[in-house]
Amino acid sequence: MADSITIRGFVAGDVRPGTTNGGVNTASFRMGSTDRHYDRATQQWVDGETNWFTVQAYRQLAGNIAGSLKKGQRVVVMGRLKLRQWENDGKTYHSAQIEAESIGHDLSWGTANYQRNSSAQA
Amino acid sequence: MADSITIRGFVAGDVRPGTTNGGVNTASFRMGSTDRHYDRATQQWVDGETNWFTVQAYRQLAGNIAGSLKKGQRVVVMGRLKLRQWENDGKTYHSAQIEAESIGHDLSWGTANYQRNSSAQA
Amino acid sequence: MADSITIRGFVAGDVRPGTTNGGVNTASFRMGSTDRHYDRATQQWVDGETNWFTVQAYRQLAGNIAGSLKKGQRVVVMGRLKLRQWENDGKTYHSAQIEAESIGHDLSWGTANYQRNSSAQA
Amino acid sequence: MADSITIRGFVAGDVRPGTTNGGVNTASFRMGSTDRHYDRATQQWVDGETNWFTVQAYRQLAGNIAGSLKKGQRVVVMGRLKLRQWENDGKTYHSAQIEAESIGHDLSWGTANYQRNSSAQA
Repeated sequence: MADSITIRGFVAGDVRPGTTNGGVNTASFRMGSTDRHYDRATQQWVDGETNWFTVQAYRQLAGNIAGSLKKGQRVVVMGRLKLRQWENDGKTYHSAQIEAESIGHDLSWGTANYQRNSSAQA
Repeated sequence: MADSITIRGFVAGDVRPGTTNGGVNTASFRMGSTDRHYDRATQQWVDGETNWFTVQAYRQLAGNIAGSLKKGQRVVVMGRLKLRQWENDGKTYHSAQIEAESIGHDLSWGTANYQRNSSAQA
Repeated sequence: MADSITIRGFVAGDVRPGTTNGGVNTASFRMGSTDRHYDRATQQWVDGETNWFTVQAYRQLAGNIAGSLKKGQRVVVMGRLKLRQWENDGKTYHSAQIEAESIGHDLSWGTANYQRNSSAQA
Repeated sequence: MADSITIRGFVAGDVRPGTTNGGVNTASFRMGSTDRHYDRATQQWVDGETNWFTVQAYRQLAGNIAGSLKKGQRVVVMGRLKLRQWENDGKTYHSAQIEAESIGHDLSWGTANYQRNSSAQA
């Protein structure tokens, strides 16, 4: 299995809906996760560096995040990490993607009103 | 550090709010997480057994889940596992607790309307 | 899928080999994982409480740990958590089991001389 | 805290020892983790794509892996993911690093003879 990971962070851009060639609903968004650690010298919590990911969702999860997530909101994402690298026109491109199994608003930072889908999950 | 774990499952009882002796807000609820695996013989996804946990939250997260989570809802929980065992009156008691860092409604199963707390997080 | 977890800890008993009814090799051992956290008041790292697990292995992993792990050694274990509870003769029994995918000696605490199995892994 | 992750894979290069400016022992190596999934159409397990990481260790763990890990060996690594990106001479560089807390030989693939360090761990 691919490398499982759970991250906490913030939605860094708009959710972009799409469709695969096979007609499956997709949605993706940029997400940042900022390291936070206790500095023993100053005895304070401080922000460290940020990991950036593209979170990718499919099917019912894709449709639900398109209607629920907004830029700036705090989220928790559970999924599989995919680091990819490819060449094009002599340049090297990189992506750090999380193929999401679950996404939720982080209730450490706010409240949420949840509405279950009427149809069963695929 | 304690053993980190992320689980997906359902809220199995009411959220019970409380306060520590020191005046810190708490909230806890029962949660079930059911194994689901692909049966190669029948070529179908089937439900397996269920892990039961008590999820424990503190401070702002405690206040937010008390106002957001309802029995039966699907959630994703990230936190630290605490397995405890103690004796009382000649009987042995067990608990499987998750001290939560993040809790969110699982958007694989529904949509959510999120409202950020006006105050900054502790 | 069942709840994935990775724990660091120590082998707390002998490795017990076995065989399933279907003739598959198994091995299991008791393991403890002790919480360790930084106490800001005393500015020291201190031991907290211990989670106890039964680690269960199958097939080639079972054979390899039977010949490699000894009581007291430090290990890292990746697998799936299974919390079970059952009744017998009016008593309630509990178990916290990890069905292991990978087990390794923790090289934070020692060195290891590794010998790859000559046969391919099942 | 940074994003925790546990990965299984193989040592893809030599372990390179070093020292920080402050005199702390370090060691790093390249590691690959290949996705493996069950193909329902062909009813077989197949290899997918590979995530590549640089695993970074410090202090006693650094010294121990320098003497224990060899290219091609199977390992399990628990640590914190750090994705970084920087510019130099008009080019963009990327790194995917895991700051390791624990590293062990994966006993799914072989046996190991473990020798605890005589000194206590820092």
